Amino acid sequence: MDWLNALLAPRSVAIVGASADKRKIRGRLLATLVGAGYAGKIFPVSASSTEVQGLKAYASLRDIGEPLDLAMIAVPAAQVGTVLDDCEAVGVGAVIVHSSGPAAQDEPGADIGERISRFVGRTGIRVLGPNSEGIYNVAGRVAANFAPVVGTGGDAALADAGGAVSLVSQSGAIGFALYARGTAEGLAFRHVITTGNEIDLECLEIVEALVAEGRSSAIMMFIEGFSRPERFIGVARRAAEAKIPLVVMKVGSSEAGQRAALSHTAHLAGDDAAYNAVFDQYGVIRVGDIEEMLGVTSVLARGNHAAGRAVAIATTTGGAGGWASDLCSAAGLSVPPLASATRARLDQIVPAYGSTANPVDITAQALEDGGASLVGVLREIEADISLNGAMVMMNMASAGRIAGLEPTLAPLLRDMRKPVVFHSPSPPAFENVAALARLGAPYASMRGATLGLAASARYGAFLQRAGNLSASGSPATGVDTAVPTGGASLGRWLGESGIVMAGEAFAQTADAAAAAAAALGFPVVMKIASPDIQHKTEARGVLLGLTDETAVAAGFDTVVGNARAYLPTARIDGVQIQKMMPPGIEMVVGMVRDRDFGPVLMLGLGGVLVEVIKDVAFAPVPVDRDAARRMIDRLKGKAILHGVRGKPPADIEALVDLLMNVSRLIEQAGDGIVEIDLNPVILYPEGQGYAVVDALIVGKED
Amino acid sequence: MDWLNALLAPRSVAIVGASADKRKIRGRLLATLVGAGYAGKIFPVSASSTEVQGLKAYASLRDIGEPLDLAMIAVPAAQVGTVLDDCEAVGVGAVIVHSSGPAAQDEPGADIGERISRFVGRTGIRVLGPNSEGIYNVAGRVAANFAPVVGTGGDAALADAGGAVSLVSQSGAIGFALYARGTAEGLAFRHVITTGNEIDLECLEIVEALVAEGRSSAIMMFIEGFSRPERFIGVARRAAEAKIPLVVMKVGSSEAGQRAALSHTAHLAGDDAAYNAVFDQYGVIRVGDIEEMLGVTSVLARGNHAAGRAVAIATTTGGAGGWASDLCSAAGLSVPPLASATRARLDQIVPAYGSTANPVDITAQALEDGGASLVGVLREIEADISLNGAMVMMNMASAGRIAGLEPTLAPLLRDMRKPVVFHSPSPPAFENVAALARLGAPYASMRGATLGLAASARYGAFLQRAGNLSASGSPATGVDTAVPTGGASLGRWLGESGIVMAGEAFAQTADAAAAAAAALGFPVVMKIASPDIQHKTEARGVLLGLTDETAVAAGFDTVVGNARAYLPTARIDGVQIQKMMPPGIEMVVGMVRDRDFGPVLMLGLGGVLVEVIKDVAFAPVPVDRDAARRMIDRLKGKAILHGVRGKPPADIEALVDLLMNVSRLIEQAGDGIVEIDLNPVILYPEGQGYAVVDALIVGKED
Repeated sequence: MDWLNALLAPRSVAIVGASADKRKIRGRLLATLVGAGYAGKIFPVSASSTEVQGLKAYASLRDIGEPLDLAMIAVPAAQVGTVLDDCEAVGVGAVIVHSSGPAAQDEPGADIGERISRFVGRTGIRVLGPNSEGIYNVAGRVAANFAPVVGTGGDAALADAGGAVSLVSQSGAIGFALYARGTAEGLAFRHVITTGNEIDLECLEIVEALVAEGRSSAIMMFIEGFSRPERFIGVARRAAEAKIPLVVMKVGSSEAGQRAALSHTAHLAGDDAAYNAVFDQYGVIRVGDIEEMLGVTSVLARGNHAAGRAVAIATTTGGAGGWASDLCSAAGLSVPPLASATRARLDQIVPAYGSTANPVDITAQALEDGGASLVGVLREIEADISLNGAMVMMNMASAGRIAGLEPTLAPLLRDMRKPVVFHSPSPPAFENVAALARLGAPYASMRGATLGLAASARYGAFLQRAGNLSASGSPATGVDTAVPTGGASLGRWLGESGIVMAGEAFAQTADAAAAAAAALGFPVVMKIASPDIQHKTEARGVLLGLTDETAVAAGFDTVVGNARAYLPTARIDGVQIQKMMPPGIEMVVGMVRDRDFGPVLMLGLGGVLVEVIKDVAFAPVPVDRDAARRMIDRLKGKAILHGVRGKPPADIEALVDLLMNVSRLIEQAGDGIVEIDLNPVILYPEGQGYAVVDALIVGKED
Repeated sequence: MDWLNALLAPRSVAIVGASADKRKIRGRLLATLVGAGYAGKIFPVSASSTEVQGLKAYASLRDIGEPLDLAMIAVPAAQVGTVLDDCEAVGVGAVIVHSSGPAAQDEPGADIGERISRFVGRTGIRVLGPNSEGIYNVAGRVAANFAPVVGTGGDAALADAGGAVSLVSQSGAIGFALYARGTAEGLAFRHVITTGNEIDLECLEIVEALVAEGRSSAIMMFIEGFSRPERFIGVARRAAEAKIPLVVMKVGSSEAGQRAALSHTAHLAGDDAAYNAVFDQYGVIRVGDIEEMLGVTSVLARGNHAAGRAVAIATTTGGAGGWASDLCSAAGLSVPPLASATRARLDQIVPAYGSTANPVDITAQALEDGGASLVGVLREIEADISLNGAMVMMNMASAGRIAGLEPTLAPLLRDMRKPVVFHSPSPPAFENVAALARLGAPYASMRGATLGLAASARYGAFLQRAGNLSASGSPATGVDTAVPTGGASLGRWLGESGIVMAGEAFAQTADAAAAAAAALGFPVVMKIASPDIQHKTEARGVLLGLTDETAVAAGFDTVVGNARAYLPTARIDGVQIQKMMPPGIEMVVGMVRDRDFGPVLMLGLGGVLVEVIKDVAFAPVPVDRDAARRMIDRLKGKAILHGVRGKPPADIEALVDLLMNVSRLIEQAGDGIVEIDLNPVILYPEGQGYAVVDALIVGKED
């Protein structure tokens, strides 16, 4: 039995530290496990009692004398080491340490972590925790946790609904809060796993194992910071291959959030933009709040993903239709007027005082005809190829509402290939959302439903392109990977990677500079070339608009003189002369190295104003053709590239090539390049390419 | 007794059409009224029975023979007229027509509307409906409605909590859904009023009456479209004077939403940007979804408004703190690190394994010490002048949680002047949110709480400036209000209003043009001046960069010739000559006339790229100094005005003056100006003013 099974589907469980007092964690662990209906063997271990909560108790794990799959440890920190020794002696399948461990290295009790590390290294037995609230295998009735919400809500009603959503949370309180809130809305869970301080098992390894097991329809994650972020891309890739959506709430989109995560878990949050870029690249859906998390998971878990962003809204109450339309629009969906052929067919179903525009107002008739009109409308939505999904709003406050529709809804939902999500404006009776869960139909809040459909469209688009993921990143060959950081060799080196600098030349004397400028054509720009001077303007080492040979020759002496005055020790290679480029669209292309994910490519629109608005897009290296296109697509001001005010469209394909070439250059240089800043890159109309006007490359310090 | 009291606090109620069948609306009306504990007299009126649901029934209103405050009508449409005649005969205080009326003019049954109109005109008795789901006076136990949710949830528990939130909704289904969802989260309502088709009483008149009554702590509105939008500004102004926040969900932020509202209620939605501008100007909080609506109302109803955007988060579970921080940041709040003096005092309260940074992680200790540490932390937050509000997160799944803290929480909440809002990550036991409601403490979802605190800061800022509202808009005098639409007189006319055009002159001959250009200084721009040619560039009537008198003289013949070729019938006044202005920050100032609210001023950053990003702000006329400043503040790229990349800050005060002058011009012209477009306006560094380079004014066609 592997660790995942020992943890989630143990045939026997020992609770070390079990207590009769159900108000204490040590008592609640046993009460929860029993109360949820666990069918395996339970062995309470107590130093003080021979019977706990009516079960025979053992003085130590060593006294049990039967095979043990899971040991739950809830003893004071100082005793954890001894219990782990017992675990080793009897050979358990997996361990959960509920006892509190350290939040940060320097806090008292930090030795729990060391004990666990040594135990895992010695035995190979995997440990969840310390400070874990435990796990819950809902359908398997394994409630190995002390969460107050387990067993108090509708979990029993949903346990047999075939729920396959798994949840991995670093925070126990949030993990089980999400479980309880999801359950209340009819989201049927398979597993809840809370990882605590992650000394051994950490969330990504668990997600990887759940993906490999292949029985989760979606995996939710609540993350304060990854213990091993370098694993993330591999896990996300495997989840994508298995078509299991990852829905991630990650703390740290704000500075205060990062501070909180650091204080709570000692995780240093990586750069949030890098996370977003990686999430986008690998089809991971990042969510920001509970409503969004539950709505997105509910829709994605059904497994039917939208082929586009056009949705139909079917409602039994007119007021809700307009509101939902606004929310769809805010979520990036469209609610288009229906095709006349579809409307004509809907006119046969919907009463005259309703509406067959979109939203479709079926009116309260839908509640009174046994589902006939609702099912009829949904069949038309399914049949209309211009629609990609459906949202159904009907009041479900009255018990029995869904049960009454079940005979007509069940076959429809079996057939339907487009995503559909239900919502009740009035708070629904739990019976109704549980009935929807049994039918495999997602239920969500109004806003959550719209965000869910939008995520479905994003995930659908991701799966379409996912086949290309493995093809990306094949490095080209034959490029010199020693990184020059400036001077003329930088332009040559970039040129070898297919990155075109503006027409330029290099000169070491005033006469050579004048001749080179004449060859390039006037006007020209002259810049000092020195490996020691990065900020050329500051050193007064740049002259613009030189219009003849005399000016260039004089300029040579000026910039060299200025550079010497600025930094007398500077090595001066000469000057760089560039043809002044005609105007075009100014852009910025760069690379930063993220602590968690390595090199991340950056694309931005240039100019002062855009800098203020911060219109930039990121993507992790490697960036293939598709990823480059999506970077461009994420710019808020992308419309300018397609031509506005009668201007011709820009050479987007050339920009795509540039991004790919920079990506390839970074891959080839390994970790040799720390930072790239091509700024500005001037983009010309279609077919006319681009020019890199200035480039800064920071190589690794040896 | 006035109509509002007759509607909401009637001493006697007749239900015309009352039925024994509680599954029918006609039966549910009586059952709901009785079930909610109405203490006044109830008179069922039935054509077929002498007793309904155990009460004596009357054949007609005329048979009752006692004074009647409220008549509820639920008979078939064709009989409504007869019942209204009876209402007139016996002299009722107010009427609710539940019977279905028309959704649009051309539908069958439209005559109900006409009947009601004639009845109101004849008798002065006010009518709610038709197609109203009714009203609910929660504390007064007047459930004059057929909403299935009334009486099924926690309303009884909240009825005596002193709730003073009123809700006015055009949609009955949404109105009572909001009521039920709010109640479930501990929002204590005073009145729910659903207006249906608004033949007589419409939402704004009802809100106005509630404001005048002065007993609502906040008023929520669900609006598909105002029947009488011209009333809105006056109502919003009175609500502001009474310090009663209006929290409005208005359908129509999307095209599909507008289509739905039109289809459902025949309301043509006004321009959404105009609504936002008016809402902002009068302190109305517009919300977009249910979570936001409930969170915002909950926080604002307490009446303590934040003086700024810095909040502290106190949590009993670390995982929630980071998440809430991110949501605060997304809502526009800051979660600053606490001052060291505050931290030092918190260190005395919070355990060492918690955190006294912000978020403050009090740890589970807060749940075990009778509230001492929670109250201690909140008192420190209240005392720290750098903080403006507090969010408390603690799990309230276990019943009795708040009751246990009540002795310590009650005096704190009585003293606390800053807004505070509570949240439970796990779904809270209703008992706990009801206990918070009795304490007057807002409860909200995690995201709703952060949006509530952000709205509190906005509303607080609004109240601070609200005193100035009545002073605004005092028109200046002595300006010619006949509107010239082009030519030299436009510049003069604008100049008289204090609006400075770029240095310019008008000429009718080539020689005069050359002389005028020399006087202005070269280079100049020349434009055709013709009342018949609005698009001068299209007519090739513009020449740029004329650098001497010869070029100007030749240019005169060129533009006049081009204009004649473009439109042979055009009246040609001459040419306008403008000094070419040095570069600065390009802006656009304009005015559009909104169907609902009249003239709305527009300010935008100029340039192609910004046009693509659509960085514009709106405000209704009159725009005073404060409103002008807030328009500037709403621009996404406003940072550019404060100086970036070492550039000097722009002359923002000059821009403020320009906006005020344009506003005054519009006021003086009455409805004489249909559209204004000053584009571009070039804004110079501080103290150097601006120049309007081109102006288009469209006057009213006579």
